[in-house]
Amino acid sequence: MDRDAAATRRRLLDAATAEFAAFGIAGARVDRIAAAARSNKAQIYHYFENKEGLFDAVFDDMCRETVDAVPIDAADLPEYAGRLFDSYEERPWVQRLSKWYQLERAGSGVLLPIVMDSNAAKVRAIADAQNAGILPTRFTAVELLGLVLHISGFWHSNVPEFDAAVSEESTRRRREAVVDAVAALIA
Amino acid sequence: MDRDAAATRRRLLDAATAEFAAFGIAGARVDRIAAAARSNKAQIYHYFENKEGLFDAVFDDMCRETVDAVPIDAADLPEYAGRLFDSYEERPWVQRLSKWYQLERAGSGVLLPIVMDSNAAKVRAIADAQNAGILPTRFTAVELLGLVLHISGFWHSNVPEFDAAVSEESTRRRREAVVDAVAALIA
Repeated sequence: MDRDAAATRRRLLDAATAEFAAFGIAGARVDRIAAAARSNKAQIYHYFENKEGLFDAVFDDMCRETVDAVPIDAADLPEYAGRLFDSYEERPWVQRLSKWYQLERAGSGVLLPIVMDSNAAKVRAIADAQNAGILPTRFTAVELLGLVLHISGFWHSNVPEFDAAVSEESTRRRREAVVDAVAALIA
Repeated sequence: MDRDAAATRRRLLDAATAEFAAFGIAGARVDRIAAAARSNKAQIYHYFENKEGLFDAVFDDMCRETVDAVPIDAADLPEYAGRLFDSYEERPWVQRLSKWYQLERAGSGVLLPIVMDSNAAKVRAIADAQNAGILPTRFTAVELLGLVLHISGFWHSNVPEFDAAVSEESTRRRREAVVDAVAALIA
């Protein structure tokens, strides 16, 4: 891909990230994405085939960024959860894209290789730490990974009534609650 | 409301529950709901004003059912979480409606009284148990409630790649993991 093509693809992914985070897959408008990226619908179909293909490319991209920015540390899962919390604070679209993905893409039969591979690598890291006696075994490695990821997203996954009840809580205290909850799981 | 009107309203709520769980608010089709309920669009607008009003009525109804079916027991939060897990297994649309609500209604300014009131009552129950020394205070009452509700929905809130990795886990083991995770929080 030449430099112009790569730049166009990047602009399309950035515009699509914002559009999908706001409206989901069914609600997203391809023409709005094209306009925001100073491109056109034909280019979107050329690079990504269709709207679902564009969503999957956005999700793939977002997962790679998260895996690179927040590598797992099985020896310190509470702080790993804290760093995930930080990344969700910085990139509020991550948890929204993840929910749209659960609601609109589950059942499509598509399993993204980046998600499969990065989950498998994390499960292995946790299983190794369990085998080494660093982590307890009350949960299987995959359960523990799932619970840690789930708890990391706690503050970004609530109904507005709950958000209203905790609107006074500082970011620092929210992070601390995530770290403490994961620490409790592995105590 | 006479008996026919009540029956029509009930059929509309049931049809709308299925439609919203599948497609969300933006994706739901009012004419499909009307057809499934053997009613018509005019009746929907008469009873619920608009599509958002219908969604809020569905969500309100679902919350009342959950509160009635699974009352909080602050003296045994792990089993409370287990009973919530059971209710999500029986009513898989609950977690889907909750996610659509987070994605599509947050920011609308609407806070449903049933959710505000039932959350406030649960927070009071937990705070009372903390004051009585039955529950620890490492988390505030509202944080602990939020974490318990969040963990209860763990198995019903994942991307398809994670679901594929745990497809062999029995319902019994899933429930046990939820109960154990909440037990760890309050240990």
